[in-house]
Amino acid sequence: MLDGTQILGLIAGVFTTAAVVPQIWKAWKTKEVDDVSPGMFFVLITGLCLWVIYGVIQKDIPIIATNGLAFMLNSFMIFLIYRYREKD
Amino acid sequence: MLDGTQILGLIAGVFTTAAVVPQIWKAWKTKEVDDVSPGMFFVLITGLCLWVIYGVIQKDIPIIATNGLAFMLNSFMIFLIYRYREKD
Repeated sequence: MLDGTQILGLIAGVFTTAAVVPQIWKAWKTKEVDDVSPGMFFVLITGLCLWVIYGVIQKDIPIIATNGLAFMLNSFMIFLIYRYREKD
Repeated sequence: MLDGTQILGLIAGVFTTAAVVPQIWKAWKTKEVDDVSPGMFFVLITGLCLWVIYGVIQKDIPIIATNGLAFMLNSFMIFLIYRYREKD
């Protein structure tokens, strides 16, 4: 069973993992991404990938699951940035 | 002393904490933030705040430090979004 602290950690993880969803939604709806930094998402997925490796070494399923999902969501945001960016 | 896995976790934390810096830099330089989702940063700082509380309960200094710093950086990004957003 999960204790109160573990539930708090789980809720915290849901928030930090889901944070990119409003940005994906905004980019999808407006097709405007010029003010969004691709650098932010590249640094982020690098870190998330390292967290997944860390989770695999530690055999920590919640770390693998939350960071793996965040990796996929943020990679999709990078795809949207390159799909919708203004051609110069 | 830190072992290899702890160092990996530390590097992962540096990346996920520092990710917002390129976005802050871009917003600061261009003064354009209209395509950036404020919702993303509000969900993110909510989660980061919960992680800090989790770290305090667990007496885990790295969790408090990395999430506390990320909380401050992402709060500053929210400040920039409201400073530079287009007046309608």
